[in-house]
Amino acid sequence: MREADWLRRAAELFGARHPGVPVGVGDDCALLEPHGPMLISTDTVVDGVHFDHRLIDWSDIGWRALAVALSDLAACGADPTRPIAALLALQLPDEFPDDELMNFARGLGECARAHGCVIAGGDTVSTPGPFAATITVVGYTDRAVLRSAARVGDLVAVTGPLGEAAAGLHALQHPPAPANAADAIRAYRRPVALLAIGAKLAKAATAMIDISDGLVGDLDQLCRASGVGARLELEKLPLTAATRELLSRDRLDPLLTAATFGDDYQLLCCLHPTSLDWLCAEAPGLTVIGVITAGDHTVALRGGREVEFARRGYEHGRPPKEKT
Amino acid sequence: MREADWLRRAAELFGARHPGVPVGVGDDCALLEPHGPMLISTDTVVDGVHFDHRLIDWSDIGWRALAVALSDLAACGADPTRPIAALLALQLPDEFPDDELMNFARGLGECARAHGCVIAGGDTVSTPGPFAATITVVGYTDRAVLRSAARVGDLVAVTGPLGEAAAGLHALQHPPAPANAADAIRAYRRPVALLAIGAKLAKAATAMIDISDGLVGDLDQLCRASGVGARLELEKLPLTAATRELLSRDRLDPLLTAATFGDDYQLLCCLHPTSLDWLCAEAPGLTVIGVITAGDHTVALRGGREVEFARRGYEHGRPPKEKT
Repeated sequence: MREADWLRRAAELFGARHPGVPVGVGDDCALLEPHGPMLISTDTVVDGVHFDHRLIDWSDIGWRALAVALSDLAACGADPTRPIAALLALQLPDEFPDDELMNFARGLGECARAHGCVIAGGDTVSTPGPFAATITVVGYTDRAVLRSAARVGDLVAVTGPLGEAAAGLHALQHPPAPANAADAIRAYRRPVALLAIGAKLAKAATAMIDISDGLVGDLDQLCRASGVGARLELEKLPLTAATRELLSRDRLDPLLTAATFGDDYQLLCCLHPTSLDWLCAEAPGLTVIGVITAGDHTVALRGGREVEFARRGYEHGRPPKEKT
Repeated sequence: MREADWLRRAAELFGARHPGVPVGVGDDCALLEPHGPMLISTDTVVDGVHFDHRLIDWSDIGWRALAVALSDLAACGADPTRPIAALLALQLPDEFPDDELMNFARGLGECARAHGCVIAGGDTVSTPGPFAATITVVGYTDRAVLRSAARVGDLVAVTGPLGEAAAGLHALQHPPAPANAADAIRAYRRPVALLAIGAKLAKAATAMIDISDGLVGDLDQLCRASGVGARLELEKLPLTAATRELLSRDRLDPLLTAATFGDDYQLLCCLHPTSLDWLCAEAPGLTVIGVITAGDHTVALRGGREVEFARRGYEHGRPPKEKT
């Protein structure tokens, strides 16, 4: 497929324009009409590192690539009632099949529509390496919630069940998948960026981060940025019954897996105890799992005893570690 | 190097913060304070496709990666007196040497300072493929100049000499480089994004594009976007004496090379003839090389005869073509 054909076909799949994006795909730059202080984030997924195209469909890979980027906007409190835009930089291997490319674009377009996001532009280059996509997302907020403002005594809460993506991936890796794995597999294939909940939490949370690389590792990052520690009670982690069953069946410890695997894209927020009732009313799934302390990293307790982790989460960059 | 160490060392090389970027490297998102309608663009460079690390230093590769992205802002008329920010998404091969990574960051930081650009964030992932960098840039303008608004009868002009990067790359590929190749090699290693000139041209140009992929191919793109054609007179292309000598010495046709090679990052603009005197006073190097016609692509004349090109420029995407 020539670049011009790809752009035309992708534009059809990516869908409508938006008044906040007066100039979209096809020029040297896109033009955005700002709607307040702007959040911007960029995320790369690489075939064989962040996903395995033998396990999920290319439309799911397209969905995930965008959802993962949008989750960073959610974690900073982007306002979903204002424009959200994305740029797609693609690296295509030689001989990459046209139909898989269009599947990728279709899934990405579905994710964009599901989250009210406009694809505003991008870049496509060839590579001798694996398929890779870097997605840059832009959103707006009047109150950006950062990782760096957690205070000692804050409660630590998460927005929903953990470990579900781990259970889903494990079911895909070890077929046939049991009947109760459908929700977990969907959670892995098509994660949802929690923009609406993030915007509600942003009204009162002191600090927030999305759980992409694993709860303990991500909370460590928040601790480092805020100059604090955290104490988690693993028994309080919210897990669905299916997640417990699926992970136990495969001889994985459900709580340890939920604490370190990541890919759930739930939000972790810190909040002053006096905000709890109000926030729980705004975000009904909110579950308190710990507290911010005067330490410098995350201490996880189980049955009152500290847990030692072989692996606290997925560390990007180097040394490289394959996730799947 | 661990991600945290890389972020800390890179932040030192990338330099100071800026009031237009209240939150930079290190959070889920960067936070930008918009300064008017916003231009945004993303560009990927891949080792072995867009550059050859055996020919130029990693600091030059860092410089070029950012300059290429900033050139898109220049082509749309970004205002260099307002904040300009960039996000860096890196894909690092296993075993990529730390000192080369820091060289890349140093060159990128030098380019950022030279262009008044703040590095506001990014992402670093590992890859089994080649080194790649996707850079997203953001700037502001009150009058975005697009590719799509050229009119029949407009003059076609370029901001400065063409073919210099081609001559520089060729000299690097065929050592030893002659003494008169220094400027051309520098033009290839460290191109400059013409932000100040682009902003001046934006006051009167009807359409603009940067010459990244080759004059004829890029002008074809502008023609397609505007629904017009163009007629170039190749003898009018501005080439330095050194570029002519270097390309001739290597049995390359200087005019054809300058018309198709790209990588010079000069700007091509279209303008109503009545704007010419005013624009030439604003941008002294501006050279008229042709005119917009009622056709649908670029026709290049030499000695009054139409030139047939085997290759009109570098086409990104597919089918892949290695440039170097």
